[in-house]
Amino acid sequence: MNWEQWFAERVAEREAAGLRRILKPRGADDPVIDLAGNDYLGLSTHPDVRRAAADAALTWGAGSGASRLVTGTLEVHQQLEEELAEFTGWPAALAFSTGYHANLSVVAALVGKGDLIVSDAHVHASLIDAARLSRAEVAVAAHNDAADVARILAANPGRRTLVLVESIYSVLGDAAPLRELADLCADHGALLVVDEAHGVGVVGDGGRGLVHAAGLAGHPNVVVTVTLSKALGAQGGVLLGPASFREHLVNAARPFIFDTGLAPASAAGALASLRHLRAHHDLPTVIRTRVTGLADLLGVEAPAGAVLSVPMPSPHAALAAQAACLAGGVRVACFRPPSVPDGISRLRITTNAGVDGADWKHACDLLARVCEEHR
Amino acid sequence: MNWEQWFAERVAEREAAGLRRILKPRGADDPVIDLAGNDYLGLSTHPDVRRAAADAALTWGAGSGASRLVTGTLEVHQQLEEELAEFTGWPAALAFSTGYHANLSVVAALVGKGDLIVSDAHVHASLIDAARLSRAEVAVAAHNDAADVARILAANPGRRTLVLVESIYSVLGDAAPLRELADLCADHGALLVVDEAHGVGVVGDGGRGLVHAAGLAGHPNVVVTVTLSKALGAQGGVLLGPASFREHLVNAARPFIFDTGLAPASAAGALASLRHLRAHHDLPTVIRTRVTGLADLLGVEAPAGAVLSVPMPSPHAALAAQAACLAGGVRVACFRPPSVPDGISRLRITTNAGVDGADWKHACDLLARVCEEHR
Ligand SMILES: Cc1ncc(COP(=O)(O)O)c(C=O)c1O
Ligand SMILES: Cc1ncc(COP(=O)(O)O)c(C=O)c1O
Repeated sequence: MNWEQWFAERVAEREAAGLRRILKPRGADDPVIDLAGNDYLGLSTHPDVRRAAADAALTWGAGSGASRLVTGTLEVHQQLEEELAEFTGWPAALAFSTGYHANLSVVAALVGKGDLIVSDAHVHASLIDAARLSRAEVAVAAHNDAADVARILAANPGRRTLVLVESIYSVLGDAAPLRELADLCADHGALLVVDEAHGVGVVGDGGRGLVHAAGLAGHPNVVVTVTLSKALGAQGGVLLGPASFREHLVNAARPFIFDTGLAPASAAGALASLRHLRAHHDLPTVIRTRVTGLADLLGVEAPAGAVLSVPMPSPHAALAAQAACLAGGVRVACFRPPSVPDGISRLRITTNAGVDGADWKHACDLLARVCEEHR
Repeated sequence: MNWEQWFAERVAEREAAGLRRILKPRGADDPVIDLAGNDYLGLSTHPDVRRAAADAALTWGAGSGASRLVTGTLEVHQQLEEELAEFTGWPAALAFSTGYHANLSVVAALVGKGDLIVSDAHVHASLIDAARLSRAEVAVAAHNDAADVARILAANPGRRTLVLVESIYSVLGDAAPLRELADLCADHGALLVVDEAHGVGVVGDGGRGLVHAAGLAGHPNVVVTVTLSKALGAQGGVLLGPASFREHLVNAARPFIFDTGLAPASAAGALASLRHLRAHHDLPTVIRTRVTGLADLLGVEAPAGAVLSVPMPSPHAALAAQAACLAGGVRVACFRPPSVPDGISRLRITTNAGVDGADWKHACDLLARVCEEHR
């Protein structure tokens, strides 16, 4: 076959379906107020965090130089792991190059052919890919439906089983019933894998996340994924669990063993964000105040986390509203089929505690006006 | 089941089999001469590269803040992609958070159920995982055996087919017969995916890699993976191919779409390394001179790339030789079953053009002595 033609046909198909998306590079002095990304606390550009990342690049170099088991484990990785474990209340932590790597690793190193994965219907692409990679059997449970999870577990006694959920879901912004799920897992000997990508830094005591808030830190039937790329403003992922869990992963997780260690600037940037968060216990409450205020203003339900999901009447209306926001100096994200779990187009608005007060007020006024016009 | 107990049992099993590996953090002022990592040109710690990574962290912040399609595409990503494409002779490039992500993406976005993957027996874990993730049928071809690839292609006429190889293999250091493989792919309408992780920066005109050296840059039946984490001294991966290939990946590759963009310091570090390489056309010849000299000294065949693989009589001898090197101030890697494709334990010695002349001489003398003692 002619591959260039095949690629071009795929592109044309997407164009025809109105689904073609292109990359738009942004400049360093982009004046737009960003309510589209996942930098929930604005820490990626905090002066202390920039400085710590820069210092690490000067001290260690631009890369870690090798896989973690060869010579790519740096003291800054160890510090990050120790302090994040302590902060979240877990015995041990292991850092990966991306949150995606962390999710691929935890699933594929714990289950395989013949085992069972019970996956919430809304989990992130990285967990879906992880499940596929593991070759375990996958049962999809209805979203946030503990009774459905219970039914699947009861129908599969004695099988090695993982239950995959997010603490706070990325698209809809709702929270998982973690306590109930952990109890179910304990009853059935299953392991609950909680992806806290959108929870840590956002909810719980001082930003310790939803697992901590639910009293589940250190629970024998729970392990946790944290990303360093969202509220912690850098790049990477971390798994939290017992010390023996960490050691098993070091020796068994292919996306850990066969990958270059996380870059020093990213590890140090995340560590500086974590330290900033510890020193400013109330920072996550800014998110809470802002998100509930904005939800009120737009007449939608306040989400569990930092992401406000505003349903729009059509993909076209969602796009038009997004464009109107941008014209007013505010960037929001827009989700349309096929990347929404329920087929409903929506604006996705990120509450960013790093945006200054006047900009936040401007953004809220604009959003209220635009939503009124397009809904 | 009791998960903590299960983890602990896995650890104990590995301990009993002599396969337990632990992470040893290194300090920033580690005095050991590193011939174990993949920083082939020593660029990760070059002053210009450190400076560029640090400046990017100061300018852009510690993270890109979002996925590439949302707001995570920065001008520094675009610059890196354009300059790397131009350097290697390809129309377009797309950057990923890791080389692993690049490999997962290229395979899973091009083939699926019912399609065919012909994989060299020695390809990297990331390509093996990628093949599994894609759900295509996998046929493993004997290592570097173009006739075997031809046989498999001939037996599968008309199927959408990828052929997966490395240009220079990571463990054995040998080179793939790229010309022959590209001709076969052209004859059968297959696409050759070449992982240049250990090729770019190391071989070819000014470090343009083995695909360029073979006259295959821009070939309609070839695409290429480059890692930013080895000779380019940073973190990340890049895919090279036609513009339509890049655009298809932007819209179809899940480990691209659903992953935070590469950290600015990593992108800028890799870009600075690339510019340094362009300005110092002869840098890769230092690798060549050193690796052939050392191969001669140790009485092994000179490899195609920068990695010298020295077979040892036993896993025990390999470990003892590695320890003797470290005692003498030189770190080399040691491969033992099960992480060697042919079951033979070996020292893996990286030629590092960044090590200064006196240190290199010390390392060579030491290696000659240690190998004489332990082989
Ligand atoms: C829920 C969730 N898990 C995992 C990831 C992957 O994290 P990373 O971008 O660090 O690879 C993301 C987003 O990117 C996410 O939203
Ligand atoms: C051949 C090969 N491909 C891909 C990778 C993955 O690259 P990265 O470490 O940037 O994820 C590696 C090593 O890590 C490799 O050796």
